[in-house]
Parts: sequence; structure tokens; C-alpha cells
Amino acid sequence: MSLLTVGSVAFDALETPFGKTDRIIGGAATYITLAASYFTEDNNLVAVVGDDFPSSMIGVLEGRGINTEGLEIRKGEKTFFWAGKYHENMNSRDTLVTELNVMGSFDPKIPGSYQGAQYLMLGNTSPSIQKAVLDRLNTRPKLVMLDTMNLWIEIALDDLKAVLKEVDILTINDEEARLLSKEYSLRKAARKILAMGPKTLVIKKGEHGALLFYEDEVFFAPALPLEEVFDPTGAGDTFAGGFIGYLAQTDDISFDNLKRALVYGSAMASFCVEKFGVERMTNLSREEINERVAEFVKLAIFKID
Amino acid sequence: MSLLTVGSVAFDALETPFGKTDRIIGGAATYITLAASYFTEDNNLVAVVGDDFPSSMIGVLEGRGINTEGLEIRKGEKTFFWAGKYHENMNSRDTLVTELNVMGSFDPKIPGSYQGAQYLMLGNTSPSIQKAVLDRLNTRPKLVMLDTMNLWIEIALDDLKAVLKEVDILTINDEEARLLSKEYSLRKAARKILAMGPKTLVIKKGEHGALLFYEDEVFFAPALPLEEVFDPTGAGDTFAGGFIGYLAQTDDISFDNLKRALVYGSAMASFCVEKFGVERMTNLSREEINERVAEFVKLAIFKID
Repeated sequence: MSLLTVGSVAFDALETPFGKTDRIIGGAATYITLAASYFTEDNNLVAVVGDDFPSSMIGVLEGRGINTEGLEIRKGEKTFFWAGKYHENMNSRDTLVTELNVMGSFDPKIPGSYQGAQYLMLGNTSPSIQKAVLDRLNTRPKLVMLDTMNLWIEIALDDLKAVLKEVDILTINDEEARLLSKEYSLRKAARKILAMGPKTLVIKKGEHGALLFYEDEVFFAPALPLEEVFDPTGAGDTFAGGFIGYLAQTDDISFDNLKRALVYGSAMASFCVEKFGVERMTNLSREEINERVAEFVKLAIFKID
Repeated sequence: MSLLTVGSVAFDALETPFGKTDRIIGGAATYITLAASYFTEDNNLVAVVGDDFPSSMIGVLEGRGINTEGLEIRKGEKTFFWAGKYHENMNSRDTLVTELNVMGSFDPKIPGSYQGAQYLMLGNTSPSIQKAVLDRLNTRPKLVMLDTMNLWIEIALDDLKAVLKEVDILTINDEEARLLSKEYSLRKAARKILAMGPKTLVIKKGEHGALLFYEDEVFFAPALPLEEVFDPTGAGDTFAGGFIGYLAQTDDISFDNLKRALVYGSAMASFCVEKFGVERMTNLSREEINERVAEFVKLAIFKID
């Protein structure tokens, strides 16, 4: 099935205890579409960059079969730039630079060929942009998933609540779930958030796995304990991309399949953190993905007599 | 099979955002033996209290069929006392009072009737006391499990390493695993710790579940997302008691059964935190335990086609 992803394509400069990078390709929609590219071939991107964005980086996306017709290149403007430095344990980071540049006036344009997309991933941007995308689609997709962050909960809560009424799945991390619901217990937080609109809530807990709340059901997928986390950048977006990519591939939004999607998303995220930036996400094989998913099965499965 | 547990029996005074208690029964061995009492009837305690310890509290243990022949009552001395206050989110606490009293000179005495115990749980006490217990047993138990804490890693590392050579299973939390191994990655930490002696390592991550490392295998049991954590005191010990109690009941130390034991331990811990102190651990029914374990199955089980 066709997948449409709207979000940021950016320059990232990263520093971790293992090294640092110059400007490399980053952005939520980059990680989402790359992860989804292992599941669906009808993989359509809407984003904006400046004319400083090299065609070689667009080639990274196109090399994975991603449709970049909806990637607007603004003449005389600069690409969104983020620089960050991770602390020793990789669980926290400092933002060194945020230059919004073209993202400050992102006005998503949906190419006609994208209309009718069945799966929609609204990557982390302002809720008003996310709402505009929904308004610009001629038909409502079968499934709409939205990611957001603490910033929007703090400065654009009304806009966020408005768009949440129209989405099927919300994916946020545990801190954001607590901020949005004003509840510490994730079980209570989930109940409040599901009452805001989404039928399904995915709470990402990073190295502690992810929870899936669906009506009165709850499912947990662990994160794989890794030898080394090299660079956590993009792990959450990669997770989301694997999740919705798997749903678009299988075109099954039952709870059992959402559970499988959560495991596939976790598997994709576990690859992402093994190298800097998108490096690991550009050359995976189907066999590697299947082996990784098999590791998740071994990690999580038990049998009570 | 028979289980022998050595550890502290204490007075606790607890304060959480939900209320506070006077001196109630606490201590690692209390939680361990209470949790194990739902699995094995041959449940033997070695501990020490002062003559200020009321017989009604000993009755709490005996009411669950725990053999208190090895509970030494020291005349003219006072029971170990700990007072703590939990912070708003329950994830951290301040110790308000620690009075070691009789625990400062704990010299575990093994009644003759306890000799031949097949399962041994060395609750958190100094490594030299844990080693003394092993030396005082006429025959080595089939399985020896040890719990410890950051204090002993910091002030008695050589003693701890000596006793670790003689145990089958070590259970510690994630911070302690990192402190003991000097590795942040839990996968690397596990490898280093397994090289110190234990064949199996259980890393407790509190609300984030528990990892079981066994030779080259790894298994993860989630914690149940709870509506409310009322009082986390004793959850780790209750987990350990459910774990080893289940092993003693089933007398099967295969990896598959260790996995089940981890789930039973997690289930018992999820009850413990629902009320203050040991309150919830004194009146569980078999049906409640089975239902809770079934919730863990629903939480964790998925099927990849």
C-alpha cells in the first residue's frame, strides 16, 4: 500500500563519545522513509530543503526507492540544521545548534500523484502543519499516524489537541506522554491520551522498549540489549518508519498486526543506533532484518505451562 | 523442594505520596520468604531480630507457613530499622534513618533441620555473611542465588567477588550491574559479571522489567504497567522470592524454566507495590497469581508469521 510521509529533511552534525560527524543527512522524514523503504515500495516524501542540500543526499533517499517528487527545494534558502552532542551514557544530549531555516516556513505541498495515499505518517513538525496536510488530502487515508514532541505540547497544545482528534495512532516518548496527560503512571496517561482522539497510542521508552495501548489492551515490545549504542539519533523516527512501513506492507491494522509492527519498528531502531546517522539504514538486507526480528522473538517469548 | 533464605528481617517506616506508616515488618528476607511461600511449603528463614520485635510480626511469617526456627531473637538488643521517604514519582527515595542494631553483628546460625536445603537464597547482606552461610552448609544446595547492593560493591568488592565464584545466579539492579562491571552497556556488563562466577545473571530494571542472561542467551520480562505504584518497598526482594520460589516448586533449572520464573517473579513484584509494605503479600490467592501471570502473557506475547 502507498505510504505518504511528511516531516523534516535536514542537515545534522553529531557528536558522541565515539566520534563526530560533519553535516550529514538527517531529519525525521529521512529516517522514517528510509526505515519504511524496507517494507513498502510506494514510499512518498513531502519535505522542504534549501538549495544548499546536495543532490548526493537526495540520492541517498532515491537510492532506497523513495519518491522525492514532494521534496521542495527552495532557491536561495538554507536547509534546516541541527547539531547535538550526546553525553557519556547516550541517554541525554545537548542541542548545540538549531537553525530552522526553510523549516520555519514549511508549507507542505502534496503532489497530485500522492493523492489517495492509504497510510499517512505525520512526522514531528508543528501541529498546524500536520493539520494542514490532512486538510490538503482529497481522501482521508486508511490510517493516520502522528509523532510530536515536548515543544509542541508546551507551545501549541490547542493545535495539537485539534489534530489529535483526526489521527488513528499517536507515537510519543514516555516523558511526552506524561507531559501531555499530566499523569505519571503510563497506564493512566494512556487512558487520558486515548480520550483525546487516537485509537492507538505507542509510547516509546528508548532503551526500555515500547508500549502499545489499543482500546483496553496493552502490549510491550522490549528494546534489544545492544553491545554498543553508537549514535541514537533518529532511533525514534526509524522505529516509527518501520512500524508504519510494516503496516503499509501488510495492510492489516488488527491489534495482532499492530503488535508485529511494534516488533518490526523496534528491530529497525536497533539497527539505526549501530552507526552514525542514517549509515546503517541505507544498506540492510531482508535477511538481516529477519534475523534481527528472530532475536526479538527469542528475547521476549516464553511459555507458561 | 526446600528453600533456605538468609537475610534481614527489620522494622520499616515508610512515607510515600500516598501516606506513611509506623514501624511495620520489613527486610529483604521477609519479602523473599513471603513471595516464595506461594510456591514452596518448605520455606526456611535464617535472620536475626531484637527482643523488641513483636510476636505478631513473626506471626505474619508463620501465618504463611514460613519456618522461623532459624530466626534468632537477641535479648536486650534492637531490631534493624530503616526509614525512607519516596519522592513524588516513586523512582527515587531518601533514606531517613538506618539503625543496623542486631544486623551489625549478624552471625547466621543454620539449624540442623535446615541442612540439606536444595535451593538457597542469599538476601542482601554483607558478602562475608553470605560466604559464611555457604561455609556452614554441610552440602552445597542444587542452586544458590545471591542478591547484593551498591554499598557492598563499593566497600567490600573483594569479599563480593569471592562469594560470586560460588553462586549460580546473581540478581542485581541495572545501576549495580554497571557499577560492578564498569560497563554502561548491559550486554557488556552481563558478559563481565558472568565471567566472575555466576552462570545466570538477572538484572532488575524496576518499572522497566528484568533481563535474564544465561550463557549466551538473553531473555526479557516486562514489568506490568500499573495504574498506581503505592509503595515500591520490597519489590526487588519480592521479585527474587517469586523467582526462586517458583524454581524450588518446579525443581527445574533449565533456561525455559528460568524464563518462567522471571515472569512469576515479575508478577509477584507487581502485587507487592499495590499496598504499603508486605500488606499485599500476605493474602494473595492462587487464582490472583494465575490471573496476573496471564496478564504478563498478554502483555508480552506476539506471533511473527
